[in-house]
Parts: sequence; C-alpha cells; structure tokens
Amino acid sequence: MPNSDLVERAINTLRFLSADAVQTARSGHPGLPMGAAAMAYVLWTRHLRFDPSDPDWPDRDRFVLSAGHGSMLLYSLLHLTGYNLPLEQLKQFRQWQSQTPGHPERGLAPGVETTTGPLGQGFANGVGMAIAAEHLAAMYNRGERAIVDHRIFGIVSDGDLMEGVSHEAASLAGHLRLGRLIYLYDDNRITIDGSTDLAFTEDRAARFEAYGWHVQRVSDGNDLGAVDRALTAAESDPRPSLIVCRTHIGYGLPTRQDTKEAHGEPPGEEELAGAKRKLGWPLEPWFLIPEDVRRHFETSADRGRQAHRTWRELFEAYRSEHPDIATQFERALAAELPAGLDSLLPEFAPDAKGMATRVASGKTLAAVAPALPELIGGSADLTPSNKTDIPGEPPFSAENRAARYIHFGVREHAMGGILTGLALHGGLIPYGGTFLIFSDYMRPTIRLAALMGAPAIYVFTHDSIGLGEDGPTHQPIEHLPALRAIPHLSLIRPADANETAQAWKLALERRDGPTALALTRQNVPTYDRARYGSAAGVARGAYVLADLFPGDGKASRLPDVILMASGSEVEIIVKAADELTAGGSSVRLVSFPSWDLFVNQPEDYQQSVLPPQVRARVSIEASAPLGWEMWVGDLGEAIGLHEFGASAPYQAIYLGLDLTPQRVVQAARRSLERAAAMAVRP
Amino acid sequence: MPNSDLVERAINTLRFLSADAVQTARSGHPGLPMGAAAMAYVLWTRHLRFDPSDPDWPDRDRFVLSAGHGSMLLYSLLHLTGYNLPLEQLKQFRQWQSQTPGHPERGLAPGVETTTGPLGQGFANGVGMAIAAEHLAAMYNRGERAIVDHRIFGIVSDGDLMEGVSHEAASLAGHLRLGRLIYLYDDNRITIDGSTDLAFTEDRAARFEAYGWHVQRVSDGNDLGAVDRALTAAESDPRPSLIVCRTHIGYGLPTRQDTKEAHGEPPGEEELAGAKRKLGWPLEPWFLIPEDVRRHFETSADRGRQAHRTWRELFEAYRSEHPDIATQFERALAAELPAGLDSLLPEFAPDAKGMATRVASGKTLAAVAPALPELIGGSADLTPSNKTDIPGEPPFSAENRAARYIHFGVREHAMGGILTGLALHGGLIPYGGTFLIFSDYMRPTIRLAALMGAPAIYVFTHDSIGLGEDGPTHQPIEHLPALRAIPHLSLIRPADANETAQAWKLALERRDGPTALALTRQNVPTYDRARYGSAAGVARGAYVLADLFPGDGKASRLPDVILMASGSEVEIIVKAADELTAGGSSVRLVSFPSWDLFVNQPEDYQQSVLPPQVRARVSIEASAPLGWEMWVGDLGEAIGLHEFGASAPYQAIYLGLDLTPQRVVQAARRSLERAAAMAVRP
Repeated sequence: MPNSDLVERAINTLRFLSADAVQTARSGHPGLPMGAAAMAYVLWTRHLRFDPSDPDWPDRDRFVLSAGHGSMLLYSLLHLTGYNLPLEQLKQFRQWQSQTPGHPERGLAPGVETTTGPLGQGFANGVGMAIAAEHLAAMYNRGERAIVDHRIFGIVSDGDLMEGVSHEAASLAGHLRLGRLIYLYDDNRITIDGSTDLAFTEDRAARFEAYGWHVQRVSDGNDLGAVDRALTAAESDPRPSLIVCRTHIGYGLPTRQDTKEAHGEPPGEEELAGAKRKLGWPLEPWFLIPEDVRRHFETSADRGRQAHRTWRELFEAYRSEHPDIATQFERALAAELPAGLDSLLPEFAPDAKGMATRVASGKTLAAVAPALPELIGGSADLTPSNKTDIPGEPPFSAENRAARYIHFGVREHAMGGILTGLALHGGLIPYGGTFLIFSDYMRPTIRLAALMGAPAIYVFTHDSIGLGEDGPTHQPIEHLPALRAIPHLSLIRPADANETAQAWKLALERRDGPTALALTRQNVPTYDRARYGSAAGVARGAYVLADLFPGDGKASRLPDVILMASGSEVEIIVKAADELTAGGSSVRLVSFPSWDLFVNQPEDYQQSVLPPQVRARVSIEASAPLGWEMWVGDLGEAIGLHEFGASAPYQAIYLGLDLTPQRVVQAARRSLERAAAMAVRP
Repeated sequence: MPNSDLVERAINTLRFLSADAVQTARSGHPGLPMGAAAMAYVLWTRHLRFDPSDPDWPDRDRFVLSAGHGSMLLYSLLHLTGYNLPLEQLKQFRQWQSQTPGHPERGLAPGVETTTGPLGQGFANGVGMAIAAEHLAAMYNRGERAIVDHRIFGIVSDGDLMEGVSHEAASLAGHLRLGRLIYLYDDNRITIDGSTDLAFTEDRAARFEAYGWHVQRVSDGNDLGAVDRALTAAESDPRPSLIVCRTHIGYGLPTRQDTKEAHGEPPGEEELAGAKRKLGWPLEPWFLIPEDVRRHFETSADRGRQAHRTWRELFEAYRSEHPDIATQFERALAAELPAGLDSLLPEFAPDAKGMATRVASGKTLAAVAPALPELIGGSADLTPSNKTDIPGEPPFSAENRAARYIHFGVREHAMGGILTGLALHGGLIPYGGTFLIFSDYMRPTIRLAALMGAPAIYVFTHDSIGLGEDGPTHQPIEHLPALRAIPHLSLIRPADANETAQAWKLALERRDGPTALALTRQNVPTYDRARYGSAAGVARGAYVLADLFPGDGKASRLPDVILMASGSEVEIIVKAADELTAGGSSVRLVSFPSWDLFVNQPEDYQQSVLPPQVRARVSIEASAPLGWEMWVGDLGEAIGLHEFGASAPYQAIYLGLDLTPQRVVQAARRSLERAAAMAVRP
C-alpha cells in the first residue's frame, strides 16, 4: 500500500494536470476533475481492470465518463496510467486536431470507451455495455472458463441524473439487475445555474432504490477508504450500484471551490496558484508529474496487465477446449460476419398486393438471426408493430442472460444509448425498433452513434402518413430530412420486400456507423425484378428501376423524364409512368432508398442514374421534401408534404393530401414543358 | 348522490361509446377507456370544474389525457358532459377531417386542452399548466379575490411514466411543490409488448415519493369511493399528487381483459358483444346513451357552470376594485401585446467588433421584460450561457410564485413540454433556453407545439461550430435543416444584434405557433443600417442587405451574383463581396434569417430579393446545407458542412473547415462562369 503522502500527491497530480490544461487552453471545465480526482484515483488504481498497452482487450473493465465535460480528468488518468497519450496532447487540450477535444471522443485518445458530453448519454451507454457483458458472459463462458467477466464503471454527475435518458436507462438497468454496472455519482451540489437547490432537490438515493439499484452514500468523496469500501461492496452486490459521493467542485480553489464558476471556466492564473498553495503543490512547473507519482500510476496498471496475461492463458485453454465457440467469439469481436450470410437473405416473389416493408424486415431478421448469434435487439415496447422479434427467442432478463431479445419498455432514448453501448462493447450487433416518429425521442443518441461510428441499427417502422388512423401525432413528416442531415448516419428507406432484405444486409455489414431503416406499416407491391432493376441496387443508394418507352420497345436514347421516389412512394411513380408512357413520354423510374449511399457513389454512376441532360424530373416522398431540389434541379419538381398529416385510413390520407400518380403526372408534364422550352432555345 | 345503478350505467356508457367507436373505425385503443372509465367518471363528475358552454373559461380546471391513445374516453366525456362535440363525430372516430382523430388534437374537439399521444408529453404539459396556475394566482389574486384558483388533472399511463420526459417533469414538479397538479395513474400492468413485468418493475410509488410527490394507492380503480377520497386528499395536499389506481385494461372484455391485445386493437364484434353481456349492457343499438345517463352527465356539468357564474361575479368585483390589473389580466389572456412594445426594442449602434447575438438577445429580453408581465421563462441550466435571465428577477420557486424565472435544471425535454403547457394555459408568453445542439433533446415537444400551434419561444444559443472548444459533441450541424423541416415552426437565425431584436419582436407577436431563435456564442459585427437594409427585413425572412457595384456608384441593373447567408455567416459574405466587387463583379448581399418567413412572402417579394434572372448564387451557412439548393439553383453553390465539427478556438474551426470569404469568392466565380456560359448561348 503506498504511503498516504504519495497517494495525496498522485491525486493532486490529477487535479493540477487537469487545471493546468484548462488554464492553458483558457477554456474548459476544471471543477469536476478537481472535485472527483480522489474517487477516480481509487477506482482506477484499485478497481478498474485495464491494460494500457491493449486498450481493446475484450475482457477489460469499461470506464465511462458520463460527465464528459470532466474530460481532462480522463485524459490525465489515461496519460498517467500509461496509455499512448503523450503529455504534449494534454498541453494541446481543446486545440485543432489534438487527441484531447473538449469532450472525450472515442477514436481519438486510446482508452476513451465512448464519446460523452451531452448529459445522460454515457449513463445509457454504460447500461448497454453492462447488458453486453452479462449477455456475452452467458453466451460464452463455459464452466470455470469465464472469458467474459468484467464490469462497467462510470462517473456520473448531477446533470446526468437530471436528464430523462438516465432515468429511463436506470429504470431498465434496475429491472434487469445489471450487477456489473457501478456508477460513482459526483454529488457536488453545483450546476451551471448555481446550487442544485435551484432545481434538483429530489431524493436521488431513494429514486435509485425505487429503480432497484444498490445505493451507497460516501459522505466525503475525498475519503479514499470509504470510496474503496463502497466499490468493493458494489462489486459483490447483484444489483447495479450507485455510489453517492459528496464532493466539492473545484476542490482546492481558494475562492471558487463549491461555486458554479468552478464548473466551466478556467480558474485564472492567480486562483490556480492559490489552489496549488492550498494543496501544497509546487507553483511551477505547470503539468508537473513527480517521478514517484508517475511510477505509482504505472505500477497500478500492473494489476490490469497481470490480469490480461492471466486472461490470455485462460482464453488459450478455452480455445483448446471449445474451439468452435472460441472461433465464433473471435469472429464476433472482430466484427466479421459469418460466411454465406447473403444466401440466407430471403427472396420475395413478385406480388402486386405485396407486403409491408416492416413485415419483410421481420422475415429478414428471422432468416438471418439463427446464423448471427451476435445479433441482439428489441423494441421500445412496439414489438408486434415493429416486427423486431426473433422467432422463439425469449426475453433477455435477470433470469435469462443468454436470451437476446430486449424489451426496452417505452424508453426510446435509453434504447438508443443502450444500442450504442452494445455496439461499442464489441462482440454484438445491436438493433432496436420504434416508430419513425419516435426517432425524435432518441436523436441525441443517434447523432452520437454517428459521431463515434457505432454500428447500431435502428428499425423505424410506420414511416409516413401511411400509418393511417393514429394521426398526425404519430406520422413522420420532417423525420427523413432530419435524419438525412446527420453526418455518417446511413438512412435506407426500401421500396419493397426485396429492397428491405438488401437494406438489412447493408446495415449488418456496416462497421463504421449507424444505419436507420425506414419501413412502412402498409403493404407495398413486391416488384418483379425480372422487369425491374435488381434490388441489390439499394447498395448504391439509387438505381434505375426501369426505363419505359412508349409503344413496344426500348430505345437507346435517354428518357424524356425521370421519376424518382423512395419507399412506399415508388408505387406512385410506377403508376404515374404508365400514364406518361401512354401519353407518349419515355420515363425513367429511379428507386432512391438512400441519399447517403448514393452520394458516396462515383460521379459516373450518379450520372448514369440521373443523366444531367435529362432535366425533366419529379420526385415524390411522403415527407417534407427538404433537399430533393438537389436531385430534381431547377426544372424539376419535388412533391412532398409541407403540413402535418391526418387521422384516417391511409388511402384516404394519400388522396386527401394529394400524394397521387395524377399529381406526379401533372408535375412531370410541367417539367417536360420547361425542359422543352430550354431545349428550344437554339 | 345518484344511485349506484345509474352511476354504473354512466360508466358503462363511457366504456361502450368508446369501444363501439373503436370497433366502428376498426382501429383504435379500447383498452384504456374501458379500464379507466370509472376513475374518469369520478374525476369529471365530482371534481373537475368546467363549463362545456365556455371551454375557454380562464379559471376552469384543466384535464390532460397524457395517455392520448385513450382518446375515445375523452371524446365520450366531452360529448356526454355537453361540449359541442356531436355524437356523429364519435361515429366518425379516426376518419378523414373528423374532430375525433386517433389521438386528441387541441383545436379540433372543444375541451381538448393539449394534443397528446407521444407518451410523456401530456405529463410535462400539465406541469407547465400547473406552473401557470400557480404563477398567475400569485400575480393576479388580490386578498379574497382569487380569480385564478384552478387545478390541473390528468390521466397518465405506464408508457407516460417510462418516458424520460415524465421523469424530468415529475422531478421538477416535486421540487416546485406544484400542489395544483393531480394525476391519476392508470396502473393496468399491460403495455404493447405484454405485462409490465417484461420491462417496468421499478417501484413507481417510491420513485414519485423520491421526487417529493404525494402518492396514494387505490387498489381497485373501479372503486368510486376510493378514487373520490384519494382525489379529495390530493386536493388538500401541498405537493403534486400521483394516485396509483390499479385498473384492468379492456375491463369487461371476456377474453381480452388484462391482455396486450386489449390495448390497441378493435375487440371484434363478438368480443365486444361478450363485454356488453358481461357488464349487462344492451347489445343494440351501438353508441347507446340511455336518457337518464345523458341527463346525469349534463347535470354533473352544472357544478362547473355554477362555478363559472360565481367566478364571473367574482371577476366583476375584482375588476371594479383592481381595474388596471384586471385589464392586464384580460389583455394577457387575449394574447394581446401591450401597446408601444416596438419602442422598447433596443437599437444597437454599428460596431465592427459587434456582439454575440445571444448577448443581443439578453439585452432585448431585459428591455422588454418590464413591459411584459406575461413573459415567463428560463433555461435548462445554461442561464449564464443562454443569457436568458431577466435582470433582477428571482427564481420561480415553491416560496416565490410571483417570480418568473424558471430554473428548469438539465431537463431540456421537460422544459419543452412545460413551455408548451405554459403557452396552452393562456395568460403567459413562455420562453426557454438551451444550446441549439440540445434542441435534439426536446424535438418531440417542439413538433407537438408546432402541431397544436402553441406559441412557445425557444432560445437556442451556441448555434454552430462557432461555439468553439466544447467540440463536435456540442456543435450543431444538422439542427438548422432538422428544425426547418418541421411544419409551422418558425426558425430565425439573426445575423446581428439588430436582427436579434427584430427576431424577438416576431417571436413575441406570434400567436399561432412556436418560434426558435438560433443565436451565436461568438461576436458578430453590428451592421451599419445606414449602409445596409433595415433589420426590420427579418420579418420577411430574407432581405437585401446591400447591392454592391464595382467602382463608385450603384447601377440600376441587376447584380451579377447573389451571396446569401444566415446568422454569423453573413459576416463571411460581406467580406467576400469586397473581393468580388474589387474584381469587377456586382454583388447582392442577402441576409436570410428565416426560410419559413420568406416562403410565406408573396412571390413578387421573393423575386425582388432573388431575381430569377440572377442565377449566379452562393449560400453559406455553418450547417448541413440540406435544402439550400432550393435558393441557389442549378448554377449556384451551397456551402456548408457535411461533417461533424471540431474542438478548437472557433476561428481555427472556421479556417480548418474552410468556411471562409475566399471559399465564397471561389464559389461565386464558378457560379458566375456557369451563368455566363448559359447566357452566351445565343
């Protein structure tokens, strides 16, 4: 056991590395690192099991800094314990292209398990990681060979506990008895507006007890022994744990400790010097790391390195005893799909009546799930509507950890954060369903998944006014463009059953970000691919469904007009094309399930689908048409909805809001006239 | 006291009107109305104070059906108690253009206080209404003249209690001790996926006690006396109340009671007949309302009518004693602004250094607030950043009901729902601040405010990469287009301090929907309006800031190229124009703060700003550029961001992501070339 002077200096090193970096950047949050350094020290040096030389070791404990504004605490810990994060990077805190941005971003500094900052998100990610740990342990551990046996630790703040997403996630974590989840609550009683007395006086401990958590109180967050004992108790409790640690924001700052100013402002050089004096720290040099402190932190990581070595031996023994399952484990961790997945995808026969794409999605899931043990998912209490169930699969629960169907409850936001956590953990491909309208409830997590490249799959059904009678409160209007605007999110809105199977294939194959599927409630025709382009065209985002020429044959010339649509509205352009070709125009039909996939195609492919010479163009989508101008151009028309929907049988709504083949025909004729007028100019 | 047979038949009338309507529509949710009819009956006939002949009576109690899928229960109550909602409308449930959509929509059937359906939203709206009731009571009541003395009642469901927004709102309601708020919790233990045991096993009562609520349990929701006593106890408790009523979903259905199938599916004719037999109800006719039941419900509304008469007398006395404050009360309820508000708007002198538009927003608020006692608002714990405080205004709290600054805590979603509730209540103009990035946390409430036309004001600061060091987790990219896509939401992104004052004016004047202000963290120049177009142009969405011609003078001809931008990027086009005019091109600068306002202008105004002949156009916005193609056209270029932001001082980010005058100049030159090439075609 190191002597207490060394420990105190180790903790002060965390405090002042953090404060020096904030002051150097003249920007950042010194309060949390200074207040929570002691509990973080205990966690990292005595409990958290990690190997800085292999940040991806599958059986490492995960650490989630849900209060991401305390990023400098994490960067300081990573540097001191030996991760490949040079001191120079700490000095470049919050600077262009450093590894140390204002809030921790997975993929920049090694050891950052999840991108945090928007409050409550890390909390939910951790719940997802804990589900992953429990589920993988049940799937893979064999007798004494517990190759999956780790915990999820985190630091959460007042803000995290106020955000609704944490309430949702905590309620589910309690229900599922996720004993591998242990959160230290940095109870500093200060938020940006001032004292928590202004807005946050609930009994947090009682609330978490009501969720079924194990709650402990540490009256002094600087009491290392008390934090240590609480962590030890938490580790042996079968429930998720919240350890309420009373801390002092900006601990040590002579005038700012316990004030809101300590939260998010550099202390100023004088105040910082005052803190150093108060805590007996040398005023110079800044970014001081005493040699014995450095050795102490590095030594503390030996625990994890040793555990990693032991685990490697364990895994070798496991592999020799259970070669098949070991191979599967490694394959899943490497995010490699099993061979032959394509052959499992259902093929749907042409059918004018067709089926809802949500139904095709369910059939695709049922077809691939047996071959994909890494697939885990569920629904935010819309299983029968989303068709997200896996046939025969029981609910994941406290009693059945091996099961892989998650009833998230009516908790879309937590579901999003949990899916991200499952994806980040590794070894699993997570999906979750809700109505497209409720993508709004989970947008903060969708964007973070996109930002950190987490391959979660969102199954958004009931994707338009086509949901019918539930009415405008449940009918997405703005949601397709709102999702398209998120960088790195792939959005696919398949037109029929076979496009749906292809969309699932793309979602499952994606490694570097999330995919959202927008699926119909209502039936759509299953197109005859002998007549139309292959559904594999989904992979290119947009593709030619057909070139239709009046009369008998095809011509080699370009069509007069391009009709394009996504999802259920492809049926409308198919019908419109009949009338237009009957009227003597040649028509290209373009199925346009995904803008992002199309944008990523080479320009020559894009131009082969949308030839620049063909300027008569019409798009139709049961959605706000925002952005379709990009594809239809100045002479084209983008048909969509500028108003909310309505409550009625869906056919009546399509008619009432005039999303009809006739409207497409009229728009096409106008566009053809404009194009002709341009062409007439000699 | 009516005899129990009549009461039982009255309750069965509610049940079967609802079930008949669902079965007739072959769509809808019979379970809640059948299970909760008894408690709704007690509430509406013995507690709720309303006058069906005047649904807008200011001192009525409000009823919120947060579980909006139970809409038929509400429609049945409204019809039976004498609101102007004919039986024919109940028979038209969920049909095109009926007053009885799938989920209740404010503005269609009289007596619907808020649009509900997306779960948790009504819960938060009710908290807003309760704040309004407390605040207006403190503002206006004088001695015994309590002209504001009403309560907010509601029915909430499992789904409501699972959604994070309800957790947030409940925590704040408990903190604020909103004793006027009383929710009946329809504890039917069934959700769409099945038993609540699947996902929702927290101790709900203990959770609400932890929030500081008064919690009661009624073990049989059909026990009228028990419900009645609990409501009476709730009414005398100073805390918000949750009455946990154990009910049975689809009560009476022979095979579906207590099953998930009862929730959202028509029972089928046979099952419905079975329920009628079981509860002793005639099989025919459907939509049966026994004459004595009709009289009974109508009579029960007499209580409210009498209260309304008494209130009118009270108000007359109040008016004669307190004429000024009575006039103010009536003015505020009529949503009329005081005369002369324009003259209070600050005017900001030209200043190259300028100020952040969030600062200008704060100054505008400070200038108008004294003249606008109906203004009430706050921030989701970002007061110092959002500049949303009203100077000298203390926090609204349990101890100070007259104060009008609300510390919402880190609860953006609840804030949104509360703002809507405040707006719906009447007599107040609510606003709330957070970072633009966190508009994602409140999107479900923003869209509902837009759908129901609630004039809430959102103060979204830190509106781009211009927020700098906090990094991509906090930098909006997709948020401007995502908000623009919401019908009926007005989004204004002012370019400087004077545009900000004008934006506030428009937001305050708006009656029929919400307004979002997107404001900078960083300084922007305050433009010289002697040189540039008046900032009053904000009202038209886009306006000509200047036409700049090379050399000395202006010419009457059209400019060669149009540069357009919103907010902080106007500074960039102003700089780009210098270089372009120096190079010999004439340039129109268009400030484009609001697409929705511009779209609503007459076409001739639109064309006067963006003449169709001028096809060389460039837009720039520090945002995903989705949709700008509409304004720049085929020959123009829309400069924006297709990637997430970065953590660095903001000037470094603008440079690093190349949002610069040079880029605009280059784009303009390319666009000019394209336009020239078109013009050359003889």
